[in-house]
Amino acid sequence: MTAAVLGERRAVPPTPADLERWRAADALARPARLGRLRARMDAEGIDAYFGVRRENTRYLTGFALAEGEEKVAGVSGQFLISADEVVVLADSRYTLQARDECPDARIERVYNDFSERWPQLVSGLRPSASGNGQVRRIGVEAGFVAFATWKRLASAAPDVELVPIEGWVEEFRQTKEPAEFERVAAACSVADAALEALLPAIRPGVTEHELALQLEWEMRTNGAEALAFDVACLAGERAALPHGSPTSREVRAAEVLLFDFGAQVGGYRSDMTRTLFVGEPSRRDLDVYQLVSEAQDAAISRLAAATQAGEHPTNRSVDAAARDVIAAAGHGEHFGHGLGHGIGLATHEAPSLGRLAPEAPLPSPTVFSVEPGVYLDGMTGVRIEDLVIFDPDTHRLERLTHFPREVTVVGA
Amino acid sequence: MTAAVLGERRAVPPTPADLERWRAADALARPARLGRLRARMDAEGIDAYFGVRRENTRYLTGFALAEGEEKVAGVSGQFLISADEVVVLADSRYTLQARDECPDARIERVYNDFSERWPQLVSGLRPSASGNGQVRRIGVEAGFVAFATWKRLASAAPDVELVPIEGWVEEFRQTKEPAEFERVAAACSVADAALEALLPAIRPGVTEHELALQLEWEMRTNGAEALAFDVACLAGERAALPHGSPTSREVRAAEVLLFDFGAQVGGYRSDMTRTLFVGEPSRRDLDVYQLVSEAQDAAISRLAAATQAGEHPTNRSVDAAARDVIAAAGHGEHFGHGLGHGIGLATHEAPSLGRLAPEAPLPSPTVFSVEPGVYLDGMTGVRIEDLVIFDPDTHRLERLTHFPREVTVVGA
Repeated sequence: MTAAVLGERRAVPPTPADLERWRAADALARPARLGRLRARMDAEGIDAYFGVRRENTRYLTGFALAEGEEKVAGVSGQFLISADEVVVLADSRYTLQARDECPDARIERVYNDFSERWPQLVSGLRPSASGNGQVRRIGVEAGFVAFATWKRLASAAPDVELVPIEGWVEEFRQTKEPAEFERVAAACSVADAALEALLPAIRPGVTEHELALQLEWEMRTNGAEALAFDVACLAGERAALPHGSPTSREVRAAEVLLFDFGAQVGGYRSDMTRTLFVGEPSRRDLDVYQLVSEAQDAAISRLAAATQAGEHPTNRSVDAAARDVIAAAGHGEHFGHGLGHGIGLATHEAPSLGRLAPEAPLPSPTVFSVEPGVYLDGMTGVRIEDLVIFDPDTHRLERLTHFPREVTVVGA
Repeated sequence: MTAAVLGERRAVPPTPADLERWRAADALARPARLGRLRARMDAEGIDAYFGVRRENTRYLTGFALAEGEEKVAGVSGQFLISADEVVVLADSRYTLQARDECPDARIERVYNDFSERWPQLVSGLRPSASGNGQVRRIGVEAGFVAFATWKRLASAAPDVELVPIEGWVEEFRQTKEPAEFERVAAACSVADAALEALLPAIRPGVTEHELALQLEWEMRTNGAEALAFDVACLAGERAALPHGSPTSREVRAAEVLLFDFGAQVGGYRSDMTRTLFVGEPSRRDLDVYQLVSEAQDAAISRLAAATQAGEHPTNRSVDAAARDVIAAAGHGEHFGHGLGHGIGLATHEAPSLGRLAPEAPLPSPTVFSVEPGVYLDGMTGVRIEDLVIFDPDTHRLERLTHFPREVTVVGA
């Protein structure tokens, strides 16, 4: 049944033409992205911005590092932005890539000599179009630059003030362009299709680890350039765990099977959770599933109402719409995490939807997860997670995750 | 031919008993590891050590995070060590794991309230066995703690001095225990067997990307809990690239095919490179291969002589043994990287063997790569990389990489 429903939605892996189109869209969008940063720099008296977070590198310069590659890439991909130019650092291993991916940037070849080169790199920056002035205050991504690096840069150019910056680019990244949504949607399609393809393999006796590996394989051979994160596959009472790698635990009949997973396409991520039933579901598990499903519906309804009205509800009010349903059923304490999170170049990014997030209207246009859950310690757990595009200004609310949300029984 | 040679060496995936034995060995070794750190702390007047690097966490406390997991784990896995105790931080997602993996540590449940909790965490530490004294100076892993975090901790407890520390634990980690060598060797066996299994799939028309994915699959379904790093597979003139992800470039006859890859077993990594010939090799490629092979032999001979004599040669002298062979053939400028690197919980760790590394006697017992290469830009590239255990004090030099080093022709 599930397979039939999904058959028409089979993911088409992104073609080289898609990748080229997205690359061109990024190049067109980059001046506006840089413009927002420069306006903020200007407002705060910052002459240049030194960034190291790999998602920010890709967003502002086009230079792409794989997840974790920044650990071995050294300074490669770190960047300086002044009012008038973009400089990308790259050691000899990365200069070809930097020239290819950042045609509008100046590439500086830097290696272990970074802190010695720092004064010259800074003084060589053009701080304004007119070429006047000097770079005296540099904003630095303080949540991502190591303390030791900061100290070395500070002492290498003592007349340059380093100003700690946190969250500027992350704030810009939460509102997205059409070509960014396209890639998140493509990553969702890849994940949807992978779970559909996995269904016949789910049967009592197979292990969490085997299913997780096969689901990964489905994604990576059908359109995903990488995973968004390691596949979570949790059977039975393990579905109540807030975190856990797949184990050699075997799937058994009459229990739940929770998959939390995502793909990466063109740099952008997806994230979805489905809780399936292996064999005949128990009454208890069905009741929990029904409750979580209603909670998700309540949050989506809240978003739909806001979208129709052209309003921006607060992150906490959307969380509350789902949480109230769960609390009313007496399970408030069994929903221990927030309702959702933004997604894009990073799997978890702004905005954050939860009780504990600082209360603020949702930005737009944006994309985030809606993922209520109920976890009964030692017994069972259910989470349902979809991504939605939210844009009340154009009255748009679009679900990107298409795998059915109805009770799905497998391996029976 | 190759397959026949390797047949007897087929990797046995580590059994649950192996994993349990390694875990027990780590637990037995941990007091000595902590003792080295505490002796250094004592010598430098440091009352406590605050660590965040995930390899150091695993080495000193037993708490294991997957590669990159530290990005989403928050403070979980960060740790404090005083003269008298080990404290591991974990949020609610990780407390079960921390209790299981760190039976001798005190687990502190910490989440977003880390900097507010810092003064209490510090004042609650027992600085010495007698319980006297106060923690006034804390060594902090300054190469891994973000500047913003440092500042928040410094202002949360202004009477506690934060002392930047770099490389202490990394220095301890370069000399290894028998059970650490066992895991590196097991990871080498997994990688050897995976390349052997891949050989029949190599033929003109298959892409780098397809081969890299299949090689990854062989490792991850036959004993590797993870990759040591993303598989590099570079065909023909692309083998001259110092860095490059697998592409849709097809393998062609009469060219080289370079694989650089490694597995992870029980937390420890392997790293190997083989340059194969697809179809009839060209004279030029064979000559380069022969040269690189001789250069590797020269380095191994230098190490063998030192091992027999019970001597510790310098890192640079071993690099020079290989480099001189390549330079004498007129290819000095085509060998642009160092000869090798240590390996263990991290793929690249101390010691470093190269022209540019600070000259120092090699430590022991240790394990490192021996990987000379010659790269002819736009034409071809050859690298041969094996791991060796080096322990002159027991006259032991052992190659852990067993895939043949002879010219190997595939897809003919």
